[in-house]
Amino acid sequence: MNADVTTHWKTIKFDGESFLNLQDEIVTEFPLTLMLDGEEFATMVCTPTDVIDLVVGFLASEGIIRTYPDIKNISVDLEAGFAYIELVNKSIVNKDHLSKRVIGSCCGKSRQFYFLNDMKTAKTVITRNKITVHQCIGLMKQLEQSSIDFHKTGGLHNAALCDGNGLLISRTDIGRHNALDKVYGHLIQNPIPVKDKIIAFSGRVSSEVLLKISKMGVGILLSKSAPSDLALQLAEELGITVVGFIRNNTLNIYTHLERIDSLGHN
Amino acid sequence: MNADVTTHWKTIKFDGESFLNLQDEIVTEFPLTLMLDGEEFATMVCTPTDVIDLVVGFLASEGIIRTYPDIKNISVDLEAGFAYIELVNKSIVNKDHLSKRVIGSCCGKSRQFYFLNDMKTAKTVITRNKITVHQCIGLMKQLEQSSIDFHKTGGLHNAALCDGNGLLISRTDIGRHNALDKVYGHLIQNPIPVKDKIIAFSGRVSSEVLLKISKMGVGILLSKSAPSDLALQLAEELGITVVGFIRNNTLNIYTHLERIDSLGHN
Repeated sequence: MNADVTTHWKTIKFDGESFLNLQDEIVTEFPLTLMLDGEEFATMVCTPTDVIDLVVGFLASEGIIRTYPDIKNISVDLEAGFAYIELVNKSIVNKDHLSKRVIGSCCGKSRQFYFLNDMKTAKTVITRNKITVHQCIGLMKQLEQSSIDFHKTGGLHNAALCDGNGLLISRTDIGRHNALDKVYGHLIQNPIPVKDKIIAFSGRVSSEVLLKISKMGVGILLSKSAPSDLALQLAEELGITVVGFIRNNTLNIYTHLERIDSLGHN
Repeated sequence: MNADVTTHWKTIKFDGESFLNLQDEIVTEFPLTLMLDGEEFATMVCTPTDVIDLVVGFLASEGIIRTYPDIKNISVDLEAGFAYIELVNKSIVNKDHLSKRVIGSCCGKSRQFYFLNDMKTAKTVITRNKITVHQCIGLMKQLEQSSIDFHKTGGLHNAALCDGNGLLISRTDIGRHNALDKVYGHLIQNPIPVKDKIIAFSGRVSSEVLLKISKMGVGILLSKSAPSDLALQLAEELGITVVGFIRNNTLNIYTHLERIDSLGHN
């Protein structure tokens, strides 16, 4: 149940000297509305692939579901752009509380949590999984090579669940959060042990990205791009190793260095 | 009323051969909650600069306000991360309708509009403003040079209102939508004619970005990055010239070519 990831658009290219007419390949962007127990819950724009994974991962990220059996029924009308979800326990949904700001610091968790929902669902990751810098660099190269559409359009993000050797589950989307939600949604539907796994990601590491990794329960996040301070504070607290700016043969290790094997003994 | 755009983080860099300890410069990410007439309206993460511009631009983008006098009072508590907004006409806010999906095609506007709010606030841009490809390339170079912090951190987006010669109002943020909202917020507070202006933007051109440009009333959008098909369909319909992938001395012209001066006569 996938629609096209890319399409063609009549474009005029200026190559520095002259104008050329061409059919440029561009990414498709698709509005998808989630109807939760008959009510409009959210509309997102996405790449129309792995849509069930996206919906399931989004609901898990938002704290609406914890496990796949929380969903009684799910169907997608891709032509109309609607997903219909029926929950087993309808009382779970309290939309008003989902993105409610944490106010005050009376709770046990730190002030880095700004949404009540995240305080409840983000979890500290405890794993002895380790990785070498050469594995980090190798996995990022595999992630980049896996996405032909990115190279053609420049408009897609990629996320993949990996072990030390290669990519296991790889998802793509115009939205970096969606790419991660698609991986998360696959894991919710097909639970596998993730303590020994790694997420490789093309996008920037914001607090929201970091919280998704924590909810998935993965201890190592590799990114091609830059992190924010809030994301790194959360990573410190939630036990996640963040390796960023993995480009060519260089990288930066920001948090939980204990999972980088042979650090200092290279 | 600005906080720091960047901060330092103790980082271990692997340069391809050995490990180096350094204080890396990273972007700050700041949760900001909007309290609208005493009620929690939204929480966003942002770069804590030009926060009033951001709040005003966000409210305009969401269709809550049309002009600056719609706001009775606005104040920001940057330490706590809250903005308090009091509207003149409180009945304007109908939060439930803001991101309500357009259903059916009975309306006059096309199916590219997926939010009711956008159907009401996006407007067709009519302007005879023109630009040459060399101006496009020059403005994008100025945008890149204007952001020292981006070069240091790799984690920021830039948006600027320009005339044919240079940048007039330039704003930066970790979120690409926020960077545009900051420019929009400045324009709401300081209305100036925009028919002869251009927006230069570092980020990808999604439908949401395109709709913001239309709401601002600007007819030419320059981007360093890639567009989506939905954004280009909206651009065709709303009369906006989209020039993308402006890198080095090359670019792609996607829509409303009539505003590119000397096209074919280079």
